[in-house]
Amino acid sequence: MKKLDDYMPFILKLENIVRIENNRILIGDRRAYPASKEFVECSSVEEAAAAIESMVTQGGGPLWVALHAVKFLAVQADARKTEKIPEIFISAKKRLQQTRPTNTTMARKLEELTNLIITEINNGNKISLEKIVGDYIDEQRSSYEKSAFAMAETGAALINNGDGILTMCFAETTFILTIALALEQGKNIKIFSPETRPYLQGARLTAPSLMEIGADVTLITDGMGAYVMSEGKIQKYMTAVDIITADGWAANKIGTFQNAISANYHGIPYFPLAIDPDLSRKGRSSIVIEERNPEEVKYIKGILITREDMKAYYPAFDIIPPHLIAGVITPKGLLSPYGIEKAYSEDK
Amino acid sequence: MKKLDDYMPFILKLENIVRIENNRILIGDRRAYPASKEFVECSSVEEAAAAIESMVTQGGGPLWVALHAVKFLAVQADARKTEKIPEIFISAKKRLQQTRPTNTTMARKLEELTNLIITEINNGNKISLEKIVGDYIDEQRSSYEKSAFAMAETGAALINNGDGILTMCFAETTFILTIALALEQGKNIKIFSPETRPYLQGARLTAPSLMEIGADVTLITDGMGAYVMSEGKIQKYMTAVDIITADGWAANKIGTFQNAISANYHGIPYFPLAIDPDLSRKGRSSIVIEERNPEEVKYIKGILITREDMKAYYPAFDIIPPHLIAGVITPKGLLSPYGIEKAYSEDK
Repeated sequence: MKKLDDYMPFILKLENIVRIENNRILIGDRRAYPASKEFVECSSVEEAAAAIESMVTQGGGPLWVALHAVKFLAVQADARKTEKIPEIFISAKKRLQQTRPTNTTMARKLEELTNLIITEINNGNKISLEKIVGDYIDEQRSSYEKSAFAMAETGAALINNGDGILTMCFAETTFILTIALALEQGKNIKIFSPETRPYLQGARLTAPSLMEIGADVTLITDGMGAYVMSEGKIQKYMTAVDIITADGWAANKIGTFQNAISANYHGIPYFPLAIDPDLSRKGRSSIVIEERNPEEVKYIKGILITREDMKAYYPAFDIIPPHLIAGVITPKGLLSPYGIEKAYSEDK
Repeated sequence: MKKLDDYMPFILKLENIVRIENNRILIGDRRAYPASKEFVECSSVEEAAAAIESMVTQGGGPLWVALHAVKFLAVQADARKTEKIPEIFISAKKRLQQTRPTNTTMARKLEELTNLIITEINNGNKISLEKIVGDYIDEQRSSYEKSAFAMAETGAALINNGDGILTMCFAETTFILTIALALEQGKNIKIFSPETRPYLQGARLTAPSLMEIGADVTLITDGMGAYVMSEGKIQKYMTAVDIITADGWAANKIGTFQNAISANYHGIPYFPLAIDPDLSRKGRSSIVIEERNPEEVKYIKGILITREDMKAYYPAFDIIPPHLIAGVITPKGLLSPYGIEKAYSEDK
């Protein structure tokens, strides 16, 4: 049976997101892609944290990089027994959590892993810390793979032969896998990928990734979504989400909201992919939108596109209300945005 | 009393759109703005036509450049009496009309002017052709100024103190004058200008022009319109239109439609500025959307932003249905999009 990475394009295979090699943490550099396939080499947790902060990796990448940075530290600690003290792991955890304050999944997993390590140290450390961390990563990966396949099967089933699909930003593994499974099912589909200014994730990551897995993808600008809908070229709108609240409010890259409004206007269903609903949040006001440096709007790949003294504004994310969402694709199947809390609380 | 050009920023003053100086046609180079204020020098109608084609000027620019190119030819013809034959003006007219096949206003004015010249030549040419053309341009400019002030007064009256205004692409003279008059009326307003990919007219022309006239303008990307609306920052949406049909369908730069849908969703009125409704057109199907070279989507200022072999799509304009239009700002005042034909046919 094919595994997740067998379906993935270059930048989404785990070994190209992050791996430990020759006593270095190698992080796939998404800033250089698709022009070149480069890795940033780090020889400390601090260097890995700085790489995450400078956007070497993004989206789902930081979680795997952070876990591997802890593994790197565990290998070092195993080699120099005297330094195997909890404080080192606690400060590494804090430093890594700091890199993406809004990534609550990464924060939670780092907490969990650090607790496992400290418990092992306090219990006399009978097995190597490398194994503790390695097993934890394997377990996380295996559970992630299971969730991704469950979601992609739900997503692929929603896609009909002949469909046109609009996406936004870089929906990563679960969206790419959805498309890969739909193609495997012999469905003829066309995908439209907006470039996603200012950071161009659509042009640099989404469209090349889809092309690499053999999908028919067309690059458009962020202003063209409604136009391609009006031409009848779009039947489904699918994106990832950074957050989905217990009551179905979604946050995703800026530009997602206007396409959701346009999809609704044209009678096109919007299906966000949410691997990990955040039950601790409820309502629009529970989502705080990060404002990034407005200078980024004024430059494209280092080139000034307006007056140097121009005022600009860069809200990084959009908030989409539940009434614009037709269904949320989760590891538990397709849920109504109004039914998330119930579906997840039944687990407990 | 202040004239139109007293209100205009550098690139929209007539002498910086086009002028004849030292036996050359000088065309303001909008491609270089705002980085520098340059002029392209032309010494023939062919060179001026090629300059229009290579986007040295755009929007309202080509009309004035074309009329001045005919004036340039008239001056030459006056100097060399033997060559004063109709064929030269007919072929110049055809060449200039060719530069913008969808600019029906320019085509009509060139037709009108050429007929005046030919009539004068056929009647024995008692007055200089330079004067014929010069008078025609003055007359056009004066009627244009009158229309622009009428529209801007209507537009400024729609703006309330404290309003936030979203625009799209470069709405040029009539929009800039609307804002200038609103500012003169002491209204405190904030304008948001999307960058307008792929050609960046918003970043390069709109935002710098507004800044130059002292307006409070903020540059955003094309994906941010709905977000700033949801924040309550926008009370009016105003753009130019390339075409408005007799029954209220509008065509304007790609990206205009999705903002119109988002404005409607948020209860924000959309007021397009239309100096010259096209009564010969009716309905959506009467508007043919130009598809430009998709390579332009893949490059920003000459820099590749995706894979070189990526497929892209570049519909240059959007079509906006009348039910998304709150009122059309015309030289005849604010018209319902459903009342254009009647308002204009009453003239005849």
